[in-house]
Amino acid sequence: MSTLWNSRYANRTLGIKSSAIRELLKITQKPEIISFGGGLPAPDVFPVKRFEESCHKVLAEHGAQALQYGPTEGYQPLRDMIARNMARYGIVAKAENVLITSGSQQALDLIGKLLINRGDRVLVEAPTYLGALQAFNVYGAQYVSVPVDDEGLITEHLDSSLRAGPKFMYVLPNFQNPAGVTLSESRRHQLILLADKYGIPIIEDDPYGQLRYEGEHLAPLVVLDRENLGCDNGFTLGNVIYLSTFSKTLAPGIRLAWIVAPEDVISKLVLLKQAADLHTSTFNQQVAYEVARDGFLDRHVKLIRQVYRERRDAMLHALHEFFPPEVTWTHPEGGLFLWVTMPEGTDSQALFHAAIAEQVAFVPGDSFYAKGQEGGRHMRLNFSHSQPDQIREGIRRLSVAIKMQLRPPRVNH
Amino acid sequence: MSTLWNSRYANRTLGIKSSAIRELLKITQKPEIISFGGGLPAPDVFPVKRFEESCHKVLAEHGAQALQYGPTEGYQPLRDMIARNMARYGIVAKAENVLITSGSQQALDLIGKLLINRGDRVLVEAPTYLGALQAFNVYGAQYVSVPVDDEGLITEHLDSSLRAGPKFMYVLPNFQNPAGVTLSESRRHQLILLADKYGIPIIEDDPYGQLRYEGEHLAPLVVLDRENLGCDNGFTLGNVIYLSTFSKTLAPGIRLAWIVAPEDVISKLVLLKQAADLHTSTFNQQVAYEVARDGFLDRHVKLIRQVYRERRDAMLHALHEFFPPEVTWTHPEGGLFLWVTMPEGTDSQALFHAAIAEQVAFVPGDSFYAKGQEGGRHMRLNFSHSQPDQIREGIRRLSVAIKMQLRPPRVNH
Repeated sequence: MSTLWNSRYANRTLGIKSSAIRELLKITQKPEIISFGGGLPAPDVFPVKRFEESCHKVLAEHGAQALQYGPTEGYQPLRDMIARNMARYGIVAKAENVLITSGSQQALDLIGKLLINRGDRVLVEAPTYLGALQAFNVYGAQYVSVPVDDEGLITEHLDSSLRAGPKFMYVLPNFQNPAGVTLSESRRHQLILLADKYGIPIIEDDPYGQLRYEGEHLAPLVVLDRENLGCDNGFTLGNVIYLSTFSKTLAPGIRLAWIVAPEDVISKLVLLKQAADLHTSTFNQQVAYEVARDGFLDRHVKLIRQVYRERRDAMLHALHEFFPPEVTWTHPEGGLFLWVTMPEGTDSQALFHAAIAEQVAFVPGDSFYAKGQEGGRHMRLNFSHSQPDQIREGIRRLSVAIKMQLRPPRVNH
Repeated sequence: MSTLWNSRYANRTLGIKSSAIRELLKITQKPEIISFGGGLPAPDVFPVKRFEESCHKVLAEHGAQALQYGPTEGYQPLRDMIARNMARYGIVAKAENVLITSGSQQALDLIGKLLINRGDRVLVEAPTYLGALQAFNVYGAQYVSVPVDDEGLITEHLDSSLRAGPKFMYVLPNFQNPAGVTLSESRRHQLILLADKYGIPIIEDDPYGQLRYEGEHLAPLVVLDRENLGCDNGFTLGNVIYLSTFSKTLAPGIRLAWIVAPEDVISKLVLLKQAADLHTSTFNQQVAYEVARDGFLDRHVKLIRQVYRERRDAMLHALHEFFPPEVTWTHPEGGLFLWVTMPEGTDSQALFHAAIAEQVAFVPGDSFYAKGQEGGRHMRLNFSHSQPDQIREGIRRLSVAIKMQLRPPRVNH
C-alpha cells in the first residue's frame, strides 16, 4: 500500500544514496572499536561550562526573544560579530553579507538550490568533501573532477576543465577534507586569475581555516578575488562565495554556520532559506553569540589547536612507526584529517572489513570521488576525535590489517 | 561584477519571492503598532524557567553528547516520546516512523523535494498556509485549489479536482492557517475514501491540533486512513503523511518539528535531510526532551489553551462590538487565527495601508492563495500574540480603517 508513495517520488530522489560514512559510523560506534572514521571534533574540548553559563544568561535576560521566531537572515549581533571576526583574516564584509545557516551542510544545499539546474557541471577537487557531493547531487549536478596533490588543487591542469564550462568551482583551500592538503599561495593566485578569465565563480568552503597547527595563514580566495577585481572596500562585488562554521571551533551539535556573499546573492539565498526552514534556531544563535563573545572564541580556538596539533603529531609518529614503507600519507598543516595512499591494487573496501576485525575503523577513499570508482587505494583518517594513546594503538591495529592485505600469509595447500 | 552570479541562478529561483508576511512583519514591528499579522505564539507563555533547568541538566549530565553531531533521524528518546504522545490521539507509530525536522517548514521542504517534479500538480485548500506554497514553489509545483468553508475543505467538489491527477493533497484539518476552520468529521471520512479511490496521498499538516478551545477532538486523517485500509497495528502502510511541531506548544525558536510516515518513506526523507542539514540540533532535541518529559508538556499545553482561548474570545467579542454588520468572520475552535471576509469589492491591500495609518496590522488574504489574485476581500487575524486589552484596542482601530474603506467620507467639491 505504501507503494502509493514509491510510485510518486520525484526524479531527483532516484540517485540519492546514504553517505557511506554515516552508514559506516553506525558499525563503528561500538566502544571497543577505535574509530578514525567520523569527522567528529573532540568532545573533551567542547566548552560545556561556558555553554551552560550562556544558556542561563540568554534565558534569564531575554528568554522570550530567544524562544520566539526570528529573522531568516540570522541574529543581528551574531552576524555583526562574524563580520568583525572575519576582518582579521582580511575578509571585509558587512553583517548584510552574512547569512546564518543551519550548519555548513545547509549552506551547500542552498547553494546547490540557487545555482544548479539538472545536468549542470560543477568543478570539484578529486577527492572532495562528500557532503558537498550529496548536496549537489539532489539538484542533478554532473561533475568535472580535478586532482589535488600536496599543494591542493592542481591549477596547472585547470584550463581544459574550465573550458568545459562548469557552473561554478567548489574548493576547500585549507586542510582539505578528506586529503588534509592546503592550496599553496601561488596556486591561490592562479585559481583566482583563471576564475576571472573564464568567468567561473568559486564556492570557497573553509570549515577548518582557524585550526592551523604550523606554517603561516594564507589569504582566503575571497580576499584574493577582491584584490584582483580591485574592490578596495565593501563587499558588493566578487566572484567568490565564502563558507565557514562554528562546528569545529565551538560545537557541531548547535548546527551553526554562515555564508558570505555579495548582498544580491544573500537576498536570493534568504528567500531559499525562508522556504527551507524559515530561520536557524534563534536560541542557538543567541547562545553561540554569548559563548563566543568577549574574546572567548579566540582563547578557545587556541586550546583546540593545541589539542589537535598533539593528536596530529601522535598520528604522524604512529604512522611512521607502524606503517609499511610502501604506504604514504599527507602531512596536514591543520584541520582534522590526513589521507593515506596504499600501493596500486590495494582495495580499501576489503581493508575496511579487515580493519573492523582488528577493531579499528577509517573511511575508504572512494566515498570522496564524484565518480565513485576512484579512490580504491586511499583512506581518510581523522585525528581530532581520539586521545593520543588511542591514536597510537589504532594505527598499530590498522598496520596489522594493512600488512595482511599487502602480504597475505601463504596458505598451505 | 556580481552579475557573474545573477547569470548563473538556476531556473527554480526565478519565481521565488519573499513571503509577503515576513516583509509586512518588518513594517509592523514598531512598538506603537498592534499587530495581528504574525503567526507568533505568545512569548508570555514560553516556559523559560523550565528551559533553563533543562539546559542545565542536559549540559551537566551529557554535555559532550548534546554538543556533538547526531543521527539524521533525530534524538532517539525524543522520537520515542513523540511516538508515545501521538498514541493518545490514536496515531499508532513507532519511533522509526518519526523523523525530527528543523521546524515544520523543513518538513514541507523535504516533502516537496521528495515528491514534486517541475510541473506536478499539488492539491491545496484555498486559502492555504503560504509557507507550504513557498516550499513547493521551489520544486516547480502547479496547484489545484479547492475552496474551504466553515467545515474546512469542501470535499463535495473534490472529484473533478482529483481526476486532474494531483501528485498529492496538502491539507490542514485543524483550525486551519489562515482560515481558522476545522475539517468536519463526515468530510474527513469522505476525504480518506476519495484519496483511496483516486490513489492520491495526503500530507496532513497539524501544527495546532492540541490547541483546541472548545468542542471534541476529531480523529486525524492519518488514523482514519489506517482504519480504512484495515491496518490494525504498526505503521507500515498508509496513504497519509502526518506533520506536527513543538513550535506552538513549547517554542518556535528551537526549530523542532516532526514527520510521521511509513518506514520506507522515512528512509528516503532521511537521505534528503542528510543532504539538506545533516541533522537537527542535537542540543535542542535533548533540551526539548528534558522540557517536555514527566508530563510537563501536557500541563503546559493546558495553560496555553487557557490563555489563547481567552484571547480568541476577546477578539470575537471585539469583532462583534466594533465591526460593521456587512463584515463576517470565522469562529475558530482552536489554533491561532481567524479569517475575516469583507464585502465584495473591498481591497485588503489598500485596507492594510489604511490600518497601518491607524497603527494596527493584519495579513491581507491574497498571500494565502496559490493563484495570488484571489483573497482580495479577506484578512487573517492572529489572536495568540497580543494581550486581551490590546486585542480589543487593535480591533477598534481596525474597525475605523474598515469603515473608512466601506463608507469613505464625502469630499466637498
